[in-house]
Amino acid sequence: MRNDGPVVVVAGAGALPEILVSALAAQGREARVLALSGFAGRAVRRRADRTMSLLDVAGILDQLAAWRPAAVALAGGVARPSPAALASGVAAWRNRKEIAEVFARGDDHLLRGVVALLEERGHRVIGAHEIAPDVLAPAGLLGAVRPAPEHLRAVRVGFACLAALSPFDVGQACVTVESRIVAIEGAEGTDRMLARVAALGRGIPFLSRRKPLGGVLVKTAKAGQDRRVDLAASGPRTIRNAAAAGLAGVALGAGATLTIEREAMIAEADRRGLFLIGVDPDRPEEIAA
Amino acid sequence: MRNDGPVVVVAGAGALPEILVSALAAQGREARVLALSGFAGRAVRRRADRTMSLLDVAGILDQLAAWRPAAVALAGGVARPSPAALASGVAAWRNRKEIAEVFARGDDHLLRGVVALLEERGHRVIGAHEIAPDVLAPAGLLGAVRPAPEHLRAVRVGFACLAALSPFDVGQACVTVESRIVAIEGAEGTDRMLARVAALGRGIPFLSRRKPLGGVLVKTAKAGQDRRVDLAASGPRTIRNAAAAGLAGVALGAGATLTIEREAMIAEADRRGLFLIGVDPDRPEEIAA
Repeated sequence: MRNDGPVVVVAGAGALPEILVSALAAQGREARVLALSGFAGRAVRRRADRTMSLLDVAGILDQLAAWRPAAVALAGGVARPSPAALASGVAAWRNRKEIAEVFARGDDHLLRGVVALLEERGHRVIGAHEIAPDVLAPAGLLGAVRPAPEHLRAVRVGFACLAALSPFDVGQACVTVESRIVAIEGAEGTDRMLARVAALGRGIPFLSRRKPLGGVLVKTAKAGQDRRVDLAASGPRTIRNAAAAGLAGVALGAGATLTIEREAMIAEADRRGLFLIGVDPDRPEEIAA
Repeated sequence: MRNDGPVVVVAGAGALPEILVSALAAQGREARVLALSGFAGRAVRRRADRTMSLLDVAGILDQLAAWRPAAVALAGGVARPSPAALASGVAAWRNRKEIAEVFARGDDHLLRGVVALLEERGHRVIGAHEIAPDVLAPAGLLGAVRPAPEHLRAVRVGFACLAALSPFDVGQACVTVESRIVAIEGAEGTDRMLARVAALGRGIPFLSRRKPLGGVLVKTAKAGQDRRVDLAASGPRTIRNAAAAGLAGVALGAGATLTIEREAMIAEADRRGLFLIGVDPDRPEEIAA
């Protein structure tokens, strides 16, 4: 282990890589950014020291060895290509192999394999929260809106359902209305799951004007998940989508999920009247509301 | 228990009520049809002795008492209104209370409550398979296409996942690709879940022409589910939707799900190159392929 080298951020999709790069800069720590083509957003790619294909494993390992990093952080999803990559058919065509490969296999297995490989090569792999501790969702009520007792019951059912699914390679979020589970996240991701819930009442005339569904979004990590990679992330958009789905609030596994732009997220929840709460995923029955 | 009265078919959505009415006619048994407004299809409503609102519980109980039935069968879903009801805004408006109520609560609880209520009133509640035994999915390979070993692994993962979800009030179907669970059915139903899987690759240029996903649809009942009500049903449309989603085949809980128009379903699977297999849900590891 070398403590004098840079911290390398291997950057996938989403806002997390930028947050880590900014945190490292604010801490005055030397950083290198390896952007994954097809996944990393535009801002990160502009800042990147190298942009490489996720499938060029040998090349990535050579580059890391050359940088002699103190630590390597894998940040941002590789389950879906970045909107930037999709916006350009050319970029998507260029990265079609990466996209198809990752799409078919799922990111869970892939990332676990990458961590094992990096450690074999003597690298120290760290989690995003080891660079920016405040990205982890804290326990307790985060906004001004308090959940009602029936919402807390729905939150407990959601955590129990996700715990039951822990042994399986499947998304770690669900929407519950009282004891009923309305949706479980699969390969489509949280945003699309929420769009699905929003669409449930549509197409039934007059029903779309019904009172809101009143359900909750529950999001957490798998039991025993390696928290250095691919923790589920939420941000202001999650709140907007939950509101559009008619939900009453959002419950996040405390210490087990990432909150991106937390202040904006809380403000969004307050503005839209949704509760936002962090819950210890090992003790969901002890919600302190 | 009266053995001389008619068999009453309480008819919700889907093709099952008609199948039962035809089976009773073929057996020369006296039948009464109580169609549930907003759910029963047009053919059943035309044949119905009464069309009543699901929420008019007192009225339904009075009608049943007047018929003095030998047995009562609840057939067809009430989770979603019939396409016929939706096609007419007027009908949907007329049934908006039923639709909103059922939609918000889920049919599981509702149907369990209805069975308990009917039994309290001295009625004998029977399952669809007690009228038409051949609607239950049998064990074994149903079509001409044989599943590959990786498909059988995916089938086992799917059954294990659904078994883990058994304690929860959530749909009993999922799509698996090898050990990865791509989608779990929620309130949207099997057809919409399959449409979601079909859409996963879309929007990514050039990727839509990729080789098929190669996953499997697994569908079964909850462990300990009352098999007299609301068994998951599959038919030719299930096969068409599974094919459109790029799946390699369909595995059904043998004795735990209903197959509607089985001959047409098998023909559809053979034509589209999908395997179709019935699997004992208590022993999914013993698939005889």
